[in-house]
Parts: sequence; structure tokens; C-alpha cells
Amino acid sequence: MKALFVSLTVRPDKISEFLAGAEDDSTCSVRDEPGCLRFDVLKDANSENKFYFYEVYVNDEAFTAHTQAPHYARWRKAAEACVESSQRIDGQVLFPANYK
Amino acid sequence: MKALFVSLTVRPDKISEFLAGAEDDSTCSVRDEPGCLRFDVLKDANSENKFYFYEVYVNDEAFTAHTQAPHYARWRKAAEACVESSQRIDGQVLFPANYK
Repeated sequence: MKALFVSLTVRPDKISEFLAGAEDDSTCSVRDEPGCLRFDVLKDANSENKFYFYEVYVNDEAFTAHTQAPHYARWRKAAEACVESSQRIDGQVLFPANYK
Repeated sequence: MKALFVSLTVRPDKISEFLAGAEDDSTCSVRDEPGCLRFDVLKDANSENKFYFYEVYVNDEAFTAHTQAPHYARWRKAAEACVESSQRIDGQVLFPANYK
């Protein structure tokens, strides 16, 4: 099980546009991709323009499929307009053992 | 909905002990705390001694209850023995809107 934690700093004047893009990507990923088990969008508790994505895929192929989905292309367009910088952590889920 | 992302660097000679403590804390938190909706334990894809906790609680009170649970006391003991350093991000879940 592959997990990503992405930290995003958003242009302060583009937060609404960012949120619309993030909601679209997270909603469509979980709804339309059998290999995407989770896509949570978080706002930092102490900053108005820091956000995080927590994503879980069944394997590397499922993540590749994610990057080829139509909602991912829409997200990339929104990210180019709105995201100042981002950092990504790649992890493997250890627990829970039976992920759902 | 309150979310935490905790980055942990573990003493290389204490990884087994750390994993036992992390599994105990994550399992008991989701099983025994009505306010803990998620507690995923990740291993960094590129490091043998970096790990992450992704935790979701229904509100601040649920997180306070977490820190008063018996498994949390066990976890703190394991963390003191095994964890070299840790960093915590506090967030609020924006999406999915109906978290489960």
C-alpha cells in the first residue's frame, strides 16, 4: 500500500481556486479510481495558505493510473495557477494491516 | 475534524520495539476510541528509520481523550525508548466533507 503526504504552499490570492481544484481531485480520485483508497485534503491549523494531501493507493500501478486520470490533468492545471511550492513524502502503509 | 501528521526518526537499533509500540497504539486507538477515526502508520519509502503517523480525530476533545488512554501511556514509554526526534503537523480535514 503506497501513501503520499504532500505539503502545499498556496498563493494567498488563489486559495478559492486551489480549494476547488483540490476538492475535484480528491473526490474524483476516490470515486473513480479503484486503486485510490484515500485522498484527504487538510488545511494547516496555523497557516491560512498551507495545505496537505494524504493519499493512499493499493500499489505503484494505481498511482500511475491516478496520474493519467482526467481529474489529475485538471488538478495539474489548478496547481500550476495556485501552488507556490510543494514537497512530497513517499511512504508505505504498515498499519492497519488490512487497509480500507 | 482534526488531523495530525507526525514524522518520527527512530533509533536504528530500536526499530522492532518501535513497530510493536506503533502497532499497539494505532490498533487500540481506532478500536477503543470512538473519536479516533484513523491512525495509519507509514514507513518512509527511502529510509529504514523514518516513519509517520497519520491520525484523524473528530475534534480536540477526542484528541485529549486519546492522550489519556492506557495505550497512549504504553506508546509514550515505547517512544521514549525508541524515537530520536519527531515533528508534528496539525491540520483540519477539509475533504472528504463526510469523513469516515
